[in-house]
Amino acid sequence: MIHTALARPALIAAAVSLSAALAATGVAADDGLGDYRDRFEPLPHLPPIPAHNSLTEEKVELGNMLFFEPRISSSGVISCATCHNPALGWSDRIPRATGHDGQIGERNTPTVLNSGFLGAQFWDGREPDLEGQALGPIQADIEMAMDLDAALERLEEFELYQEKFAEAFPGDDNPINKDNLAQALASFQRTLNTPNSPFDRYLRGDMNAINDQEKRGMQAFVDTGCIACHSGPALTDSNFWAIQVPGSTDVGRFDVTGDEADMYKFRTPTLRNVGVTYPYMNNGATETLEEAVAIMGREMLNRELEGEMIADITAFLHTLTGKMPEFQVPALP
Amino acid sequence: MIHTALARPALIAAAVSLSAALAATGVAADDGLGDYRDRFEPLPHLPPIPAHNSLTEEKVELGNMLFFEPRISSSGVISCATCHNPALGWSDRIPRATGHDGQIGERNTPTVLNSGFLGAQFWDGREPDLEGQALGPIQADIEMAMDLDAALERLEEFELYQEKFAEAFPGDDNPINKDNLAQALASFQRTLNTPNSPFDRYLRGDMNAINDQEKRGMQAFVDTGCIACHSGPALTDSNFWAIQVPGSTDVGRFDVTGDEADMYKFRTPTLRNVGVTYPYMNNGATETLEEAVAIMGREMLNRELEGEMIADITAFLHTLTGKMPEFQVPALP
Repeated sequence: MIHTALARPALIAAAVSLSAALAATGVAADDGLGDYRDRFEPLPHLPPIPAHNSLTEEKVELGNMLFFEPRISSSGVISCATCHNPALGWSDRIPRATGHDGQIGERNTPTVLNSGFLGAQFWDGREPDLEGQALGPIQADIEMAMDLDAALERLEEFELYQEKFAEAFPGDDNPINKDNLAQALASFQRTLNTPNSPFDRYLRGDMNAINDQEKRGMQAFVDTGCIACHSGPALTDSNFWAIQVPGSTDVGRFDVTGDEADMYKFRTPTLRNVGVTYPYMNNGATETLEEAVAIMGREMLNRELEGEMIADITAFLHTLTGKMPEFQVPALP
Repeated sequence: MIHTALARPALIAAAVSLSAALAATGVAADDGLGDYRDRFEPLPHLPPIPAHNSLTEEKVELGNMLFFEPRISSSGVISCATCHNPALGWSDRIPRATGHDGQIGERNTPTVLNSGFLGAQFWDGREPDLEGQALGPIQADIEMAMDLDAALERLEEFELYQEKFAEAFPGDDNPINKDNLAQALASFQRTLNTPNSPFDRYLRGDMNAINDQEKRGMQAFVDTGCIACHSGPALTDSNFWAIQVPGSTDVGRFDVTGDEADMYKFRTPTLRNVGVTYPYMNNGATETLEEAVAIMGREMLNRELEGEMIADITAFLHTLTGKMPEFQVPALP
């Protein structure tokens, strides 16, 4: 269900680009790959918005502030944007997340780009949605290491946050609370999408938006079976699959469910913007996309992919990089 | 000597605001405080540019990238912008700088805003200019903790940096070197200025740009002698003065010169944007501007300032907050 009261320049600009893309439909001759294209979905401009957290300009603005707010970490210098760095594809481009006191976690930081399209959050899917996700890293000992009540008290100290929370959650007597913190952060993150990648333009009918090698890569992606798990608008089924990539001893979803059947299972990662969100895999041990494709062939498809096919698939994956979303570096209080 | 080939939208916008401010000159009746105004200087739009590092668009763009580049830290997550955070007045708003592995330094992070106007860099003035300053925090064990050669090697890995350094330093065979790293960072920082604060507009003739209390604060600032050290366009003489603020055992400039006469001496800090660069003093132990003004009266002017005068001076100091400068969140490679 879509509840949105959002009207921002970024979204208007996105809508204009969409019109332009649609206008291009049918100009070039069809390339005969319609059966392949039909297996994919272009990325919408917004993910599904949950009924309990309507998307408003006020929440997005507040969430934008909070995303860049280091004082909700116990050191006072780590914010969401430290690991989900907009300069680095909204991720960190290091193997494993590095947080409070330089502690290094077990897993690679997932990008927040298009994360509203995921049906489960975190590598192990331990939260179903962005509201659930938002409060995790703030409290995690190896990330922001902050007691949630202390974070809320810190925000309460600032008149500007009192105003912005009241504006974003007008019905609440005490709007600075953990649910609203989560809702604001989730709302901001739902605006961090990258539609109109070359591949989206291709799916919408611009036959020249991707080149011949990239089209061969798309075909190989379908024919070899990558698409079995990497499906839907974000190229993930949001489901869990067992894999032990080189160097990983991480038990994955087993940690969440305690069910032996979930041992070593991880949520299929989105492939949107995969070209700019290296390194790869749950342990971030894989530096290049070519290597990642080869490993996935070996581990998930039980097949040694040839060099040329790897190059083609990699070229295709680069067409999934969209324009980075608009946001503000906020003036914090 | 001014060498500049810079023509950026930000500077053009600034020039337009300047024209608007000048157009306002003489509209309001003079307030009779010309003798006070004559003791001050409005902030120019650019600081002095050294002859050996002309300011070019290419250097500024590269410096902007490097300023946000965490991979020149040994953890891979700390950049210049971590402590000099544009969301926090280009400083960090915590008492003392917190860097590599959460180590906490001895001193409060100075803002980089208008730092090109300072005649000496760092609290202890150990570097004369921004070129000298730039490489310090990268190598400091408690800040970015990076070997400089390792930082240069890391940059060398990226084609985009190879291109950008070559464009910024077209005469060099091996442009990715420490001098150019310093020059690019210094060039970017020289664009981070905040002219056209309310007080600048007042100095340029807009008699209503600051209110009566702020004008009383300006007068008290002159009459009590604050202006003896806080003089010139950045409200600092860039000179060194002995002070031991509450809680500080820091020997200051003595560490640099070994000269007993420099014991406990610190460079006069700029007062530009002091309203948004709390907390205060070399140890960051002073939370409010009112307290800071009282401490300075006591320690430097040997005088217990009255509450009303403290309020007036504080109000005046808030008129020194200018519009935050334009910059890009870069798309890093």
